[in-house]
Amino acid sequence: MSLSSLREQPGVAAATAAETRGFVFNHTMLRVKDITASLDFYTRVLGFSLIDQRDFPEAAFSLYFLAYVPAGTAIPEDDAQRRLWMAGIPGVLELTHNHGTEQQDGPVYHDGNSDPRGFGHLCVSVPELEAACARFEALGVPFQKRLSDGRMKSLAFIKDPDGYWVEIISNTVRA
Amino acid sequence: MSLSSLREQPGVAAATAAETRGFVFNHTMLRVKDITASLDFYTRVLGFSLIDQRDFPEAAFSLYFLAYVPAGTAIPEDDAQRRLWMAGIPGVLELTHNHGTEQQDGPVYHDGNSDPRGFGHLCVSVPELEAACARFEALGVPFQKRLSDGRMKSLAFIKDPDGYWVEIISNTVRA
Repeated sequence: MSLSSLREQPGVAAATAAETRGFVFNHTMLRVKDITASLDFYTRVLGFSLIDQRDFPEAAFSLYFLAYVPAGTAIPEDDAQRRLWMAGIPGVLELTHNHGTEQQDGPVYHDGNSDPRGFGHLCVSVPELEAACARFEALGVPFQKRLSDGRMKSLAFIKDPDGYWVEIISNTVRA
Repeated sequence: MSLSSLREQPGVAAATAAETRGFVFNHTMLRVKDITASLDFYTRVLGFSLIDQRDFPEAAFSLYFLAYVPAGTAIPEDDAQRRLWMAGIPGVLELTHNHGTEQQDGPVYHDGNSDPRGFGHLCVSVPELEAACARFEALGVPFQKRLSDGRMKSLAFIKDPDGYWVEIISNTVRA
């Protein structure tokens, strides 16, 4: 669909309100059962960095913030400065861990893709799609859809430790 | 929590795998009931731009991709080039519209914040937090939590047309 057609879709604002200048789509929050398993998945398998953690012991939960930090980026050492820096960047993933859920049997959270539906997935784009998926296979990551499954050969879905779907697409080859 | 402590959290990978270089947390997907209402909310109220739309009439659904596009950014006119550009940026919101849901009575999708829980919220950071929230009030946007509610005075939650929570925080003032 052409760019001009997109601007004419019903519901699309004719102009961007000046009051929204500087707005940033900062993060998406998901609840996770076992934070150690999730940190392992998002840092080791997917390459995110943990850039902030906030503990609320009296309310028995902790928040973890992850992002892709380009090599050479100086992450502020100071907590307050780092939080301000983090609030200004897009592409942050917030994981909420309610303490103790990791000791429950079976899945604790709902991935949104069966009733009641809502949230669908996260998506990570990669430079080498085939290589990335082969590596996920080698690491034993569960797939919801392999590249070879179905008609859409240019995307895969893997599953995080809670079963949330993570779409994998190319950011170097036109789909 | 100090940056060095973050790196020592259980589960956090000791080093970022070279194979994940160039990975981008590209988008988050949510299903929406009434795409016109959602496009109005995300473009007029929140200032996103609609940068791609993909229709699958045989399967009766359409995908809409929105992002904050900094002023002066040249969005590629060509569809294939625009999709490749879009796959390489963080902070994209994908909305899935299953055709016909807009004609159903009442809410169609689950916001993830009551049982069964999972997905929590999106977050948009803004330069002028008080002014942004006052504008949302003036526009009649429903709030889940106003700045003045509860103990955390530096964040608010508004609700999108499906009831998904959108956290609003400052990206200029330290929390």
